[in-house]
Amino acid sequence: MEEVPGSTGTSAGFALRLGQTIFSSASLLFMSFGVQFYSYTSFCFLVTIMGLVIPWSFALALLDGYSVLVTNPVRQKGILFIIVIGDWLLSTLTLGAASSAAAVVDVLLTADGAVCLPKICSRYLISTIFAFLSWFLSMASSLFNLWILPSL
Amino acid sequence: MEEVPGSTGTSAGFALRLGQTIFSSASLLFMSFGVQFYSYTSFCFLVTIMGLVIPWSFALALLDGYSVLVTNPVRQKGILFIIVIGDWLLSTLTLGAASSAAAVVDVLLTADGAVCLPKICSRYLISTIFAFLSWFLSMASSLFNLWILPSL
Repeated sequence: MEEVPGSTGTSAGFALRLGQTIFSSASLLFMSFGVQFYSYTSFCFLVTIMGLVIPWSFALALLDGYSVLVTNPVRQKGILFIIVIGDWLLSTLTLGAASSAAAVVDVLLTADGAVCLPKICSRYLISTIFAFLSWFLSMASSLFNLWILPSL
Repeated sequence: MEEVPGSTGTSAGFALRLGQTIFSSASLLFMSFGVQFYSYTSFCFLVTIMGLVIPWSFALALLDGYSVLVTNPVRQKGILFIIVIGDWLLSTLTLGAASSAAAVVDVLLTADGAVCLPKICSRYLISTIFAFLSWFLSMASSLFNLWILPSL
């Protein structure tokens, strides 16, 4: 049984999960305090998806932290399969939400009139950047876990 | 060597590639004849990505068609690896482009004033739907090829 850094049950995997939790929380917070997010469907979608990613990543961060402490990684094929499917689904949704939010931010920033105050617009932008970072880490987790799946 | 329907060199794979080519061409055509697509960054992005997907899918459709005719599928690990990476990259980009375009279409349709004529707006919408269909088929190809990769 080879150890792939970044897969479930390794310290790199724990770091990836922690990063996902932090980035998606940051994305959610920046979006929630920009009080007009519910005016745009894309921002509502982003908030919904971030609300799904945070508990998922946090739970898996706990699982990884526990595995690292007891040095006995969870390596049952069924569990890993569910983790891969979940990661893949959430990373696809995160990418879709982040892209939609980026498109709306672009429309707002390049609009002729002042559609949103600069302070609010920059909040939307920062939230979108955090969502992309969260997608990147989530995709990495998914690929690492998919890589070790056939060897189980 | 098991045959996975939908992977490179099978008739299902050929059908998938043909579907990708048709859907991405339809998406490009509907967007290009809506003459204002260059006003929005997301639509430009969608046109660029569709311009990449069409030759890629068409070339692989030819390869698959040839493989089916000579009943000797191309099964070299290196080539399949490049196909999987390319498919994965293009399907990610297609999803991003389709989501951005969908977000902009949503903003345009729900805007207070008449931002675009109904006829033009519906063109954007149809183009986006075709882009999502193209993404779906492209992702299926990528997953099927990834599935047979470890067995080579």
